[in-house]
Amino acid sequence: MLTFQKVLTGFQTRADARAERTDAFADGIAWIENEFVPIGKARIPILDQGFLHSDLTYDVPAVWNGRIFRLDDHLDRLEVSCAKMRLPLPIARPELRRLVMELVSRSGLRDAYVEIIVTRGLKFLRGAQAEDIIPNLYLMAVPYVWILPLEYQNHGAPAVVTRTVRRTPPGALDPTIKNLQWGDLVRGLMEAGDRDSFFPILPDGDGNATEGAGYNIVLVRNGELHTPRRGVLEGITRRTVLEIAAARGLKTHVTEIPIQALYECDELFMCSTAGGIMPLVLLDGNIVGDGTVGPVTRMIWEAYWDLHDDPQLSEPVTYAP
Amino acid sequence: MLTFQKVLTGFQTRADARAERTDAFADGIAWIENEFVPIGKARIPILDQGFLHSDLTYDVPAVWNGRIFRLDDHLDRLEVSCAKMRLPLPIARPELRRLVMELVSRSGLRDAYVEIIVTRGLKFLRGAQAEDIIPNLYLMAVPYVWILPLEYQNHGAPAVVTRTVRRTPPGALDPTIKNLQWGDLVRGLMEAGDRDSFFPILPDGDGNATEGAGYNIVLVRNGELHTPRRGVLEGITRRTVLEIAAARGLKTHVTEIPIQALYECDELFMCSTAGGIMPLVLLDGNIVGDGTVGPVTRMIWEAYWDLHDDPQLSEPVTYAP
Repeated sequence: MLTFQKVLTGFQTRADARAERTDAFADGIAWIENEFVPIGKARIPILDQGFLHSDLTYDVPAVWNGRIFRLDDHLDRLEVSCAKMRLPLPIARPELRRLVMELVSRSGLRDAYVEIIVTRGLKFLRGAQAEDIIPNLYLMAVPYVWILPLEYQNHGAPAVVTRTVRRTPPGALDPTIKNLQWGDLVRGLMEAGDRDSFFPILPDGDGNATEGAGYNIVLVRNGELHTPRRGVLEGITRRTVLEIAAARGLKTHVTEIPIQALYECDELFMCSTAGGIMPLVLLDGNIVGDGTVGPVTRMIWEAYWDLHDDPQLSEPVTYAP
Repeated sequence: MLTFQKVLTGFQTRADARAERTDAFADGIAWIENEFVPIGKARIPILDQGFLHSDLTYDVPAVWNGRIFRLDDHLDRLEVSCAKMRLPLPIARPELRRLVMELVSRSGLRDAYVEIIVTRGLKFLRGAQAEDIIPNLYLMAVPYVWILPLEYQNHGAPAVVTRTVRRTPPGALDPTIKNLQWGDLVRGLMEAGDRDSFFPILPDGDGNATEGAGYNIVLVRNGELHTPRRGVLEGITRRTVLEIAAARGLKTHVTEIPIQALYECDELFMCSTAGGIMPLVLLDGNIVGDGTVGPVTRMIWEAYWDLHDDPQLSEPVTYAP
């Protein structure tokens, strides 16, 4: 088992090495219109419908310690998102996979957040002929993103259940299509900030919890895991959490979670490709469980980072020497 | 009063003249980072939060026959939208106003759709310091956009009430903040297309009508106008419609509109800066009223285009000779 200290030290050593880099891709890289460009110089057409109507979907695999994690699961989900939006993949999947690996390789980043974005392209849907709709693909890899910085993960963070904003309902926008229409989540971030937190949990408007700004939530009660079923992204980190728990004989429930259950659980955490397993120890100012990171959360945290070396779930990136 | 034929001929003559143009701005112009560029070459940073989280608001005044219409009303609304999003205007309002007029002047476009976009800028809100948040401003002017092409406006169009998608509720995203999170509206456009229409009307999920993909709706019954109050943009074309009706002694109601009322009205139309007053004569395959463009709609249509010459509501653009 990995300890917190080992994960932190390993990451910090790699981050320090990156900070020494002076090459063009040290802060990230993008692939746009068949070119690799430094992230700070990467530009997209203003007419892209991904900007003009947020008409896009995306997915985010991560690279950890030089290995990409669950890439095929992220590509599977991207294909499903595209199909639901009636967007063809702009390039064939094997070519996309190869391009993602090349992007990371060229970036030189050992720990990276990799964004694969498919937009409707340059033509607005209304009145367009099917043959005018040519989707665009954008790729970017930037240094690994921490929703909750690693150094805080050992102690946990405060969250709020938002009272000024609800999650967009599935009947308006299917949240299993990973999307960037973050109006509700941004509003949630603002409310969290107003209430001395960075981490909103949005209700569904019918008394149930959904998710937060880029993360699923999971609660632990009596040794069993519960996570919302509806109105949320089907997170790949969440899936990893459920697999870890099931492999250890813990019961898991993907189901409706009444808001009230959040205040009555033993442990609570966020999970996301951007930061992994992130314990919450305060909710609306109330202590969660005993106010420390609980044993189930800690076990899953360690197992999660352990799995990043597992050749079943990750593969090494080949970097230039 | 303007007749349909006169409006059509005037527009067509100007559109034909534009089609002859070969200069760089004939298809439109953008203002990005203090430069005026041809629309087809205009690019924004991929890191802009307006793209990465659709964290933006915008507004759209139009230019008609060389005059800009209700510009100050659009700027008022933009300021309100920005305030609701806690976004400062990136530049002072008088300077923004001047810049919009310069943009249109340089475009040479006599009939234009002018988009003013304010984004959160390059820094993601989460964890950012207030001083890191520097909003970005983008401007563009393109040839006038017709949601319903002018040549069809004399006969009206078919619409559908969507059954596969509802409008995003105000509790998730306040629709009075003009936004580009069009997931629900794009889904609506797709359903309309599947059902031999281009024009969806989205329900609010509680049995009431809201709006469509870029337009408010107005119904006429017994000589009175009704338009939805909640879950919609406070449209400036809608306001013009209500003002025209009130000035002629017609009663107007901004109120809840049960879906059923759409099937029982005498006249129905869409209204938007992108196309003006656009009659609907079929709804879900049922004839609206007697299936022709009704007298109230026609009166408002004519008065609407008439007002574009009114110095109270429009002002001339000074073009280069």
